Amino acid sequence: MSEKIVTAAFVMIGDEILSGRTVDQNLNFLAKNLTEMGINLREVRIVPDVEDEIIFAVNSVRKKFDYVFTSGGIGPTHDDITAEAIAKTFGDKYEKNLQAVEILEQSYGKKNVNEARMKMAYMPRRASLLDNPISSAPGFRIENVFVMAGVPKIFQAMFFAAKKELVGGAKTKSREIKTTLTESLIAKNFSQLQQKYLQVAMGSYPFDEGTALVFRGTDSEAVNSAASEMIDIIKNIDNNSLISA
Amino acid sequence: MSEKIVTAAFVMIGDEILSGRTVDQNLNFLAKNLTEMGINLREVRIVPDVEDEIIFAVNSVRKKFDYVFTSGGIGPTHDDITAEAIAKTFGDKYEKNLQAVEILEQSYGKKNVNEARMKMAYMPRRASLLDNPISSAPGFRIENVFVMAGVPKIFQAMFFAAKKELVGGAKTKSREIKTTLTESLIAKNFSQLQQKYLQVAMGSYPFDEGTALVFRGTDSEAVNSAASEMIDIIKNIDNNSLISA
Repeated sequence: MSEKIVTAAFVMIGDEILSGRTVDQNLNFLAKNLTEMGINLREVRIVPDVEDEIIFAVNSVRKKFDYVFTSGGIGPTHDDITAEAIAKTFGDKYEKNLQAVEILEQSYGKKNVNEARMKMAYMPRRASLLDNPISSAPGFRIENVFVMAGVPKIFQAMFFAAKKELVGGAKTKSREIKTTLTESLIAKNFSQLQQKYLQVAMGSYPFDEGTALVFRGTDSEAVNSAASEMIDIIKNIDNNSLISA
Repeated sequence: MSEKIVTAAFVMIGDEILSGRTVDQNLNFLAKNLTEMGINLREVRIVPDVEDEIIFAVNSVRKKFDYVFTSGGIGPTHDDITAEAIAKTFGDKYEKNLQAVEILEQSYGKKNVNEARMKMAYMPRRASLLDNPISSAPGFRIENVFVMAGVPKIFQAMFFAAKKELVGGAKTKSREIKTTLTESLIAKNFSQLQQKYLQVAMGSYPFDEGTALVFRGTDSEAVNSAASEMIDIIKNIDNNSLISA
């Protein structure tokens, strides 16, 4: 039984990330969670808070991948331009979403929904809201694009809401082997192993004490066989060089 | 005197970032260092270890921005395909760089430069090497593209080598004001201020205790005036709401 390969892209809208003011905290969270549910994050783009750049980036990825996630720019201030940019991306009307208005009114009280807060209720006409228990900021979905907040806590809450609507595919099995051997000592054998197991993606990552070898693929038997063979290779070179497997 | 606006893009080559196995540590370092020297990081892309994706990403940004930095994929193993991909990006020959061979031989001893290590000496014919005191892995430059390692320590060393070849432009002055006021309470005034100071980029970022307002621009007088006006506005709304400025 071979399951479908499901793919995703992530577009961060964030002057503050690009300037270095803020350290991104969303990418690894998203990557790990998608991987766990059998969705392959295949591309990330970070663009500034500029309408044309947002539209271009989202249009570049939304037809290429099954799902697209965006972060940032959906708050009440003038620099929050993502929702309108996404409406333009889809050639859709940018208008008040009545369900979002209701949530804002419930959350703040009808009298306290000022102009700025009401701005958060505007989104593409065809958007559907994402549940978000910890804030009234409305994330939304339009087609395969999930528009979420940049603040990590809210991003995470919105992702868990989005998750209910995501259909995962073939899960990636991953094995990691750590050895004190340097990359160049095992490179040749490692490359030959890659040739033998073309269905397994093999990566080598040096670290202070040696090398981490990662075996990834949807064919878990092949991943395990390849990893076992590599353990034997490492032990053959130096029996004491295996750190973990 | 108005200085040139200098721009940059960053292309990370990294299956391990996309899968969530590794948390990126290079982006914020690069962003901060570029900002400090008056170079605006304007776009980031993260792509998998796939030749076509690397070529497409680098070609998409190298004509649009003054400088491009890449990270990852320049080691001795079969999954290190960046140098060859960059050669193809520029339609250049992928061949042994004699200076890189010399560095490898000095570092490991002539006899110990095996096939895998020698692979690291291959790069585009027109490449020039980046100094790198902490590893013999050769980073290089071709035209406006700087090809660097993914391991943070080596990435940083290579960046400091690259830095000598970078020409910065107009430096961005940045001011940050923190207030306990929520975004929506100041959104209107903040937006009006933005209309008044079009040369200042104003961003609003909520955090647990309130809102951080960031004023950025190359016209430092305008940045300071805008920030001062905002401080007055905040004090007028609630004299005790200013956290820092």
